[in-house]
Amino acid sequence: MTEQQRKAPYDLPDVSGLSIGILGGTGDQGKGLARRFALAGHRVTIGSRKAERAQAAADDLTGGQDGGLPVSGAENPAAAGGSDVVIVAVPWEGHKATLESLRAELAGKIVVDCVNPLGFEKGKGAFALPVEEGSAAEQAAAVLPGSRVIAAFHHVSAKLLLDPDVDGMELDVLVLGDDREATDLVQALAGRIPGMRGVYGGRLHNAHQIEALTANLISINRRYKAHAGLRVTDV
Amino acid sequence: MTEQQRKAPYDLPDVSGLSIGILGGTGDQGKGLARRFALAGHRVTIGSRKAERAQAAADDLTGGQDGGLPVSGAENPAAAGGSDVVIVAVPWEGHKATLESLRAELAGKIVVDCVNPLGFEKGKGAFALPVEEGSAAEQAAAVLPGSRVIAAFHHVSAKLLLDPDVDGMELDVLVLGDDREATDLVQALAGRIPGMRGVYGGRLHNAHQIEALTANLISINRRYKAHAGLRVTDV
Repeated sequence: MTEQQRKAPYDLPDVSGLSIGILGGTGDQGKGLARRFALAGHRVTIGSRKAERAQAAADDLTGGQDGGLPVSGAENPAAAGGSDVVIVAVPWEGHKATLESLRAELAGKIVVDCVNPLGFEKGKGAFALPVEEGSAAEQAAAVLPGSRVIAAFHHVSAKLLLDPDVDGMELDVLVLGDDREATDLVQALAGRIPGMRGVYGGRLHNAHQIEALTANLISINRRYKAHAGLRVTDV
Repeated sequence: MTEQQRKAPYDLPDVSGLSIGILGGTGDQGKGLARRFALAGHRVTIGSRKAERAQAAADDLTGGQDGGLPVSGAENPAAAGGSDVVIVAVPWEGHKATLESLRAELAGKIVVDCVNPLGFEKGKGAFALPVEEGSAAEQAAAVLPGSRVIAAFHHVSAKLLLDPDVDGMELDVLVLGDDREATDLVQALAGRIPGMRGVYGGRLHNAHQIEALTANLISINRRYKAHAGLRVTDV
């Protein structure tokens, strides 16, 4: 057991200097996370297939009251290769192909997958799609054997992340992975956003239900007209 | 849309007079729920394959400081047929066969399934088992077409339920089902246990991940030496 593993579970590293790349940062979820991490002082690079789209999303965020935020845009390979930690927020449809194309740039890095493979049907609502590897996060781990893949940030509301009137988010981020140093680091990153807390949530083979749970949160939001989040009690 | 469906989601029925049968009430989870519902004033019948085992579990609960609790024991068919609401807390291995054998007694009733189909492996910990019907709750619904099957109480700690020093439970019970009157009723039942709140959690086709999430809670408990529960924020 390494020194890191002997540490108490609440003793998390200082991650304040880390830069963050966000693949799929032009979507609401990625853009929202980009905004919150930049507000917390992290240098953020929004990645997209096209540099202009990435730059436009970055310009959106640095306009208005958020002027001066440390956000820039780049093509996905540059966003991945030039950042300490890379968040995957691409649509599920493009998940596997995007990651396969970035294997070299993502090697050795902590890759945080927050993709929820969900389908929607009228009258049925949201439901989990079957994933051959078990979950989006396990697919990422299979495609990126040289990266340290972590699953996190599945349940954060893109709407709240982007809302300029919302100062803090009232939820715990479940962080899953097989590498404790990496889960600790991502838990610490979650804690950089006011109101959020990173809580260890299990190993990657239990990621499916965390992704799928987003379908339940969508139902809850609909029933209660809410932006539901989860808190873990007794932790 | 019926009158019931137009109600606000927080407007739950009075369930104080309902009697509760618990199949598998001799296990820790069922016994713990029996204890808490009896403490809340419900007449509870613990069911088991053998009447003597059911009676022994009931005697356990009514001994000591809980003397006088309205708990009795009976064979499963009597526990099912003689109660207003029936909770299924049997081991996953016997789930399908037990329910098939009680189809007549459970017809027309609200059946609350709280079974978590989990496996355990050394070095891997807990993980969700595949279920042909999608989840234990959907299996119950398939086996019991004449009952109103609801999924709930998956994440309550049997240890805390049985602990005489624990007055309240700090968690929300996610209640899933396709029949709003029945989910409302089970939400109200959850609210009878101090500290618990019943929150609508989606339709039955999204029950799998709620059952499977118990594996993550086991990992969380292990990491933090806790009895973790979930709270839903903004609801």
